[in-house]
Amino acid sequence: MEVLQVVADLVCTRRVAGMQAVSLRVLQSEQGVVSVASDPVGVPEGKWVFVTTGSAARLAMPDPLTITDLAICGIVDHWECAGNAPAATPDAGAPDAGARAGVRAAP
Amino acid sequence: MEVLQVVADLVCTRRVAGMQAVSLRVLQSEQGVVSVASDPVGVPEGKWVFVTTGSAARLAMPDPLTITDLAICGIVDHWECAGNAPAATPDAGAPDAGARAGVRAAP
Amino acid sequence: MEVLQVVADLVCTRRVAGMQAVSLRVLQSEQGVVSVASDPVGVPEGKWVFVTTGSAARLAMPDPLTITDLAICGIVDHWECAGNAPAATPDAGAPDAGARAGVRAAP
Amino acid sequence: MEVLQVVADLVCTRRVAGMQAVSLRVLQSEQGVVSVASDPVGVPEGKWVFVTTGSAARLAMPDPLTITDLAICGIVDHWECAGNAPAATPDAGAPDAGARAGVRAAP
Amino acid sequence: MEVLQVVADLVCTRRVAGMQAVSLRVLQSEQGVVSVASDPVGVPEGKWVFVTTGSAARLAMPDPLTITDLAICGIVDHWECAGNAPAATPDAGAPDAGARAGVRAAP
Repeated sequence: MEVLQVVADLVCTRRVAGMQAVSLRVLQSEQGVVSVASDPVGVPEGKWVFVTTGSAARLAMPDPLTITDLAICGIVDHWECAGNAPAATPDAGAPDAGARAGVRAAP
Repeated sequence: MEVLQVVADLVCTRRVAGMQAVSLRVLQSEQGVVSVASDPVGVPEGKWVFVTTGSAARLAMPDPLTITDLAICGIVDHWECAGNAPAATPDAGAPDAGARAGVRAAP
Repeated sequence: MEVLQVVADLVCTRRVAGMQAVSLRVLQSEQGVVSVASDPVGVPEGKWVFVTTGSAARLAMPDPLTITDLAICGIVDHWECAGNAPAATPDAGAPDAGARAGVRAAP
Repeated sequence: MEVLQVVADLVCTRRVAGMQAVSLRVLQSEQGVVSVASDPVGVPEGKWVFVTTGSAARLAMPDPLTITDLAICGIVDHWECAGNAPAATPDAGAPDAGARAGVRAAP
Repeated sequence: MEVLQVVADLVCTRRVAGMQAVSLRVLQSEQGVVSVASDPVGVPEGKWVFVTTGSAARLAMPDPLTITDLAICGIVDHWECAGNAPAATPDAGAPDAGARAGVRAAP
């Protein structure tokens, strides 16, 4: 699973049958890589979400036969994007992602 | 799912049985990476489409036993290719993909 | 699916049971990345083929229980390798892959 | 399978149904790539773990219908991170990973 | 499928149930990328093997419910590692992998 940011809706008027009710969102990684995910949660733009890929993406949809290979599974409570502030990474390779992920006791 | 551009047909006279009726298209990403997808939609060249990978690709075909790992699922209404105009990206890493994806209310 | 070139056979005398009848070929991408595919077609060396990955690769084999994650599905009629002649790409990012793929009406 | 380091918990109050009991951990590779895995083991931060991806990740969970595409499968007894000490790799490409993986007789 | 070199055993005392009998090996690609595979063959260190990924990896194990996404499927009879001798590649992009793979008639 990965943590990506919702940046836009994707508008596709013409699509294959069986995708008509699926909301599609444009996501961007910290490195700027763009991908498209189905959104069963309803996430506002700008939020950081975690996504599942492959056959697991279909399990996240209300209908597990939905055509998708990337689905939003939840909204991350707190995520500091290291990709937008590379100067703030003094020690590359060190386990400094803890501060970014809002470390708290596991739910 | 990814957003790719249709650039050509792929002509394969000799292929395994079970692929005889599938239309194959050559797709290119914004970064110039070339891949091949099955096309159940019938997309004109030059259009930007979104594709699914893996087992989800088979679900997008009229026959879900079609041999494919990448299928075109729909035509994107509006997509500005950032890869062709890197100078137009003043703020790398910022959520500027919104302008590219033709943000409208989700369908 | 991807388009790769057959460059050699792969000789593996000692292998797991259930792979004894499968012909293995060494493939190379335009960028020089090497991979190994099962070959149900019987492709001469030097030909450009298109391959499927994952569970779709098994569907391309005569026995769908064959152990493979990359299978040759067909021979491309015409493919010009851009990777060997980067100087011939005057407009990076433009949809110039059409000329490489032998554009004809879709089969 | 890959060997990654646990660096933090991931807190997601709002998530899709069917993930409520799953503990999520932020992992980091030797190269600093961040990913999120479900954790059926209960691993302390800082430990190096090995993970499985795709449909195999679901088999590692107590409930194989859990929505995940990356699951922690075990704790590596000993792992020296080469990514944090690139100067300690005098012979790039040589099979020097043996010293890092704590070579002992296979269990 | 890929061709990788066995460089070490991976020792994991604490692991999820259902993996207790699986031998884990540390593999390294020609480019130095490290991964972990289950080994149903019993390969000596230093050998070059070919591996399958995803659901195909489980089919290579004696028990197809084994938790793995990368399994060793066989030992390559002869493989010259180009990654350790980049100076020996005079013509990048050319189909020179044939000499590396020990070309013989397919089994």
